[in-house]
Amino acid sequence: MSGNRGVVYIGPGKVEVQSIALPQLSDPAGRKANHGVILRVVTTNICGSDQHMVRGRTTAQAGLVLGHEITGEVIEVGSDVLTLKKGDLVSVPFNVACGRCPMCKSQNTGVCLNVNPARPGGAYGYVDMGGWIGGQAEYVMVPYADFNLLKFPDRDAAMSKIRDLTCLSDILPTGYHGAVTAGVAPGTTVYVAGAGPVGLAAAAAARLLGAAVTIIGDVNPKRLEHARRVGFETVDLSEDASLAEQIASLLGEPEVDCAIDCVGFEARGHGHSGSQIEAPATVLNSLMEVTRVAGKIGIPGLYVTDDPGAADPAAQKGSLSVRLGLGWAKSHSFFTGQTPVMKYNRNLMQAILWDRINVADVVNVTVISLDQAPEGYAEFDSGVPKKFVIDPHGSLKAAA
Amino acid sequence: MSGNRGVVYIGPGKVEVQSIALPQLSDPAGRKANHGVILRVVTTNICGSDQHMVRGRTTAQAGLVLGHEITGEVIEVGSDVLTLKKGDLVSVPFNVACGRCPMCKSQNTGVCLNVNPARPGGAYGYVDMGGWIGGQAEYVMVPYADFNLLKFPDRDAAMSKIRDLTCLSDILPTGYHGAVTAGVAPGTTVYVAGAGPVGLAAAAAARLLGAAVTIIGDVNPKRLEHARRVGFETVDLSEDASLAEQIASLLGEPEVDCAIDCVGFEARGHGHSGSQIEAPATVLNSLMEVTRVAGKIGIPGLYVTDDPGAADPAAQKGSLSVRLGLGWAKSHSFFTGQTPVMKYNRNLMQAILWDRINVADVVNVTVISLDQAPEGYAEFDSGVPKKFVIDPHGSLKAAA
Amino acid sequence: MSGNRGVVYIGPGKVEVQSIALPQLSDPAGRKANHGVILRVVTTNICGSDQHMVRGRTTAQAGLVLGHEITGEVIEVGSDVLTLKKGDLVSVPFNVACGRCPMCKSQNTGVCLNVNPARPGGAYGYVDMGGWIGGQAEYVMVPYADFNLLKFPDRDAAMSKIRDLTCLSDILPTGYHGAVTAGVAPGTTVYVAGAGPVGLAAAAAARLLGAAVTIIGDVNPKRLEHARRVGFETVDLSEDASLAEQIASLLGEPEVDCAIDCVGFEARGHGHSGSQIEAPATVLNSLMEVTRVAGKIGIPGLYVTDDPGAADPAAQKGSLSVRLGLGWAKSHSFFTGQTPVMKYNRNLMQAILWDRINVADVVNVTVISLDQAPEGYAEFDSGVPKKFVIDPHGSLKAAA
Amino acid sequence: MSGNRGVVYIGPGKVEVQSIALPQLSDPAGRKANHGVILRVVTTNICGSDQHMVRGRTTAQAGLVLGHEITGEVIEVGSDVLTLKKGDLVSVPFNVACGRCPMCKSQNTGVCLNVNPARPGGAYGYVDMGGWIGGQAEYVMVPYADFNLLKFPDRDAAMSKIRDLTCLSDILPTGYHGAVTAGVAPGTTVYVAGAGPVGLAAAAAARLLGAAVTIIGDVNPKRLEHARRVGFETVDLSEDASLAEQIASLLGEPEVDCAIDCVGFEARGHGHSGSQIEAPATVLNSLMEVTRVAGKIGIPGLYVTDDPGAADPAAQKGSLSVRLGLGWAKSHSFFTGQTPVMKYNRNLMQAILWDRINVADVVNVTVISLDQAPEGYAEFDSGVPKKFVIDPHGSLKAAA
Repeated sequence: MSGNRGVVYIGPGKVEVQSIALPQLSDPAGRKANHGVILRVVTTNICGSDQHMVRGRTTAQAGLVLGHEITGEVIEVGSDVLTLKKGDLVSVPFNVACGRCPMCKSQNTGVCLNVNPARPGGAYGYVDMGGWIGGQAEYVMVPYADFNLLKFPDRDAAMSKIRDLTCLSDILPTGYHGAVTAGVAPGTTVYVAGAGPVGLAAAAAARLLGAAVTIIGDVNPKRLEHARRVGFETVDLSEDASLAEQIASLLGEPEVDCAIDCVGFEARGHGHSGSQIEAPATVLNSLMEVTRVAGKIGIPGLYVTDDPGAADPAAQKGSLSVRLGLGWAKSHSFFTGQTPVMKYNRNLMQAILWDRINVADVVNVTVISLDQAPEGYAEFDSGVPKKFVIDPHGSLKAAA
Repeated sequence: MSGNRGVVYIGPGKVEVQSIALPQLSDPAGRKANHGVILRVVTTNICGSDQHMVRGRTTAQAGLVLGHEITGEVIEVGSDVLTLKKGDLVSVPFNVACGRCPMCKSQNTGVCLNVNPARPGGAYGYVDMGGWIGGQAEYVMVPYADFNLLKFPDRDAAMSKIRDLTCLSDILPTGYHGAVTAGVAPGTTVYVAGAGPVGLAAAAAARLLGAAVTIIGDVNPKRLEHARRVGFETVDLSEDASLAEQIASLLGEPEVDCAIDCVGFEARGHGHSGSQIEAPATVLNSLMEVTRVAGKIGIPGLYVTDDPGAADPAAQKGSLSVRLGLGWAKSHSFFTGQTPVMKYNRNLMQAILWDRINVADVVNVTVISLDQAPEGYAEFDSGVPKKFVIDPHGSLKAAA
Repeated sequence: MSGNRGVVYIGPGKVEVQSIALPQLSDPAGRKANHGVILRVVTTNICGSDQHMVRGRTTAQAGLVLGHEITGEVIEVGSDVLTLKKGDLVSVPFNVACGRCPMCKSQNTGVCLNVNPARPGGAYGYVDMGGWIGGQAEYVMVPYADFNLLKFPDRDAAMSKIRDLTCLSDILPTGYHGAVTAGVAPGTTVYVAGAGPVGLAAAAAARLLGAAVTIIGDVNPKRLEHARRVGFETVDLSEDASLAEQIASLLGEPEVDCAIDCVGFEARGHGHSGSQIEAPATVLNSLMEVTRVAGKIGIPGLYVTDDPGAADPAAQKGSLSVRLGLGWAKSHSFFTGQTPVMKYNRNLMQAILWDRINVADVVNVTVISLDQAPEGYAEFDSGVPKKFVIDPHGSLKAAA
Repeated sequence: MSGNRGVVYIGPGKVEVQSIALPQLSDPAGRKANHGVILRVVTTNICGSDQHMVRGRTTAQAGLVLGHEITGEVIEVGSDVLTLKKGDLVSVPFNVACGRCPMCKSQNTGVCLNVNPARPGGAYGYVDMGGWIGGQAEYVMVPYADFNLLKFPDRDAAMSKIRDLTCLSDILPTGYHGAVTAGVAPGTTVYVAGAGPVGLAAAAAARLLGAAVTIIGDVNPKRLEHARRVGFETVDLSEDASLAEQIASLLGEPEVDCAIDCVGFEARGHGHSGSQIEAPATVLNSLMEVTRVAGKIGIPGLYVTDDPGAADPAAQKGSLSVRLGLGWAKSHSFFTGQTPVMKYNRNLMQAILWDRINVADVVNVTVISLDQAPEGYAEFDSGVPKKFVIDPHGSLKAAA
């Protein structure tokens, strides 16, 4: 490491690639982190939740180094690390987790009790998630490395699938968690709200889980077109036909077995007029409408406790007008929260390595250089059907 | 059967015991129901959800025969019934279920597809639940009897525990479902919102499930006093100390592992002023506050799709202002709907017969005659800590 | 129905197509069965477990009408049947189940308490399974029809997939149950013992469930060749290399995550000499060897309580020499018994109708006429990689 | 620490208290273990599995320091330990686990991949379990301390319940795992084979889990008498009446819902003659007989891969004559292996601290000094109904 460069949040709508500090084996409070490793970043993805910050919808401060979707090579190993060595190629779960608290011990790494003084749950490069430095950079530090990192068993095999494996740090397990909690199983019918990368990953997960048919809904025609191209049914929520009607035209009945909310709090309403304005509980309410009785609704889409940019005071505090009575009448259950990546990533890695899931094609992985990151952010924000993956050292280009 | 008498809804605040028709082996649409039996009612309980109708909070029509919590003796057997005979003493799950649809086959009898033309799920003596005649009467018809009825193995043993066994038709399985879905297991800490009969039954269920400690919250001092008398910790929500503070003073920390909402949509706010006004999402929002991360929230308390008497237009349509962002940040999951009684009643019967749960004492079963039913309704509505059980033929008095 | 013909067991090694009685709406004890329907059989498959009888390994009596894998059209409806009508095309689960006992109510239809006086669990056309007449015939009676039958939603769509749908009555749910109980999930590595139809169906189920890789082992080279042709990895147990070694050469490690025993008690040993002699616990013991610690072993292959033809006295009573110490050291769990078809068949039907599983090709469905049944039995017994499906009325030929 | 003394295995039938080395922060291979802590042992229990070694049934070598049931106070903290400090009172799960391998990350700490070069799974003071020094001593080292140790939240409260809390290191979670895997839940009927400490702990666990009735069987009259004294039903297997008959006389039917094998491979036969000779599969076979269809059988009792002292050559290799056919006909499932203590100990601690389980009384905890350990071994081997707990520093005497 002769220096380090990373993607830095400057202010609403603006990110820059800047020189940043070299990573140290220490935690945000400045304590020595012998349990950590330093990675040379091989890939690091731009995520929709990064956009929440960049759009100015959060209290993120200027200067924050972004990036929580990281794959890398171990180049320095803390003295307490026992199972990793230099040269190992690893996937980093976006959740920072200590491996020692009751939550980590029971596979709930998304709400680790020890990595964020403010509240349970930590992440890299994210506001209010513990202050861990982001990985949209050349180098990054990963704490509790023995616990957190997933080592790829064969380096060459991994590099040949790196476009898929880069999805293991977040969106594939996130979509998969949504599908699993929604009860997706062989033969089920599935509706996924949202055709962004997480929605597409959820759909890919549903297919891997054996769903009979997977339908994706959105208002963005380009994303819907891409969803169809990679093999899914779609409904266009900018049309006037209701979601239930569009589902009925596909399935012969207006309900599905399982529903997954991959949109979250920045939802927009439905229909020609509705789709122009924010309507934060619209997605969730529509899912209750189209999910069969006794069905489950997985909610990997982000809902926040504070949304200063929301249209009404209740939503600013994270309160939404939810049709709870409808869900209750249908005996629905609801599953929220950040996916505990570690619960799923090993098996999903196997599924990728054995060619059972083509997640890179499904989410349309588009590799860019570190310097192209600001353009990537801007283009992603425009709603293109692409998942931008930063290749800070040109490793993918070199491998190809 | 020389005649039949039952509790009839007359109008808001008014019920009467009237002569009603003798039950027939036919369904609400008038079709022959050879799958049914006729019961001589041994006990039939007044339920909090009956009160919703009697208070005029629903569209129930005058003339409705009330009662969905029924225990009885088989006195007539339809020609298709194979496993029951005259003289059998049986518990009737409040859910009417066909035993033939995909929901019934997968233990989701609360949302049977065949017993209610309006929507999935049926019940006796309840508005919008299929038109099945209620059982607060001397005699009642039960359809699909082989599937629906739980036969007590020994008649004398059953009569000696009848005050407990009468709780199998609804509140014990309802409370138990809340506890199970909330993840109650040995050693967990549990908070139950609501000290009415369902809340007490949920607490008794939590104790049976091995909970380390069970705390019940309410604003009604008499109900809280009774809850303490039967062995539970309590928090008084009419006090100004917050729920979290009161829990912390009991447990040493402000959160519990598991929470159960036994209040539902008629919730009232918290604190000296708050407890006087309706605040339909208060309970649910407070449960998110006090449930630990990755915790589960069981919601057996009723939430409705239409509440014409609600204070605001959104609540009238069953939309409540839910702090979804808070639940999401804590990775909560939520479980709603009517309990599928049949999934639980056999094992709970065993627990009663082997003296593992004293649910009658916990809910304070108070036996009254059929003629006393109107007084029972009125007294229950005043918030006394009693569960009124109607003994229409004086069978319990005779047995005692 | 002008008459009926069926496949009749004559004696060891011999079956004949004979005229048999027309089916009646009555049960084996002669009681009226108004809950039943009569089917015109559309397809009915020859099963490996039929072979156990035909080989003379059981106490089956001459005159038994064979056949428990049945798909048909409703042509007569008992008076208590509510959800079916003439013309419905239905799949019959091989388990006869009453829909009224505690086992049926909890999805354990494989051990229904009311359909077999000798012991829990019934089946059509099978020794000691309750005396229900078999369906390798033109017509057959199905009792408790509302509960037992799965109706295909669209007749034409069903006929176009009938070669796959005929597998819903037994082998597909049986293989699927093996896979599910073995813990097969996305990304797992799976070993299936036995390349007969159930083994192939288990492998197809594993693929549908998202397994990373599925390996099938057998001693029969033609079956292994077919297994490779339909996309599975194989190990040849007639070779001297151990099972673990052959798995290691495929996976890079000698163990799998999940194992499924699709062989059962008629297992043969391993290696050049071993494969010639019976060794009833060999399969199970080898599965413990190659299943990873904390793994699960699904055992859909049949083990019997009495095997008069077994080589040693212990095996004649169903006692086998099991390496329980090995399983214990590896924290294995073991799942036995007949699959409860109804738990799975609806979703598997959906998977077939939406083209997610090509089970007919995987098991190599081979359609024959009723008159060809004896040849089918003989050819199947020789170990050909085919699943024989009888088309007693030429319906498939007509449809094609 | 001025010196250390421990219980040492000398040879068949013989243990001695000897001076032993002071514990070091290093692992059995001599590597520095900065992840470890040193404990001053507060209690350490004699276990039935220690007896296997002391009886000479294993390949344990003279000089082995015994003891895997340990509770202690942290007196030295390795440099990598983050969550513990001197003075913490902790329970040590008997399984040594690394907290970094896939098994530890998925709660299968009983088969950790990194703590025993010979095979998955480690333990303290036990042959073939990784060479970790035993804790029947004054001081002991615990590796991976952050991950392994359960800290008691309040030291004084813990000392007042220390006779119960000492059971958290092994027998209570072991019995509980048996009960959980057997499907024990509220209202179930349970049979526990074996009235030794693990059997009694399993019965206590079953009661905590809400079992309707728990029956314990043994051939030892004193143990049965004690079992009745602490509230369980019993069957005396030295009588000629069969197990099924004795169960029927208690329950009215010859089967239970759930069965737990707390005996393992040193089982003896049944009846006046049978109970004198070893019959290693007797217990398991009898459990299949008395477990209802679709029931589960938990097997916490130890079965070994090698038993040089067994009566017949098959048993010497861990092969037993199992009535698999019977289990299969009844659709049983079987759960084996060492309990992953960490999965359960936190909740069980809560149950103890809140007075929900009186495990010390149930297993009859009998406190002895370190010097009395040899007598404790001898007395325990004679079959007394006692659980011996060594108090090496007189801490319990001091606290009392």
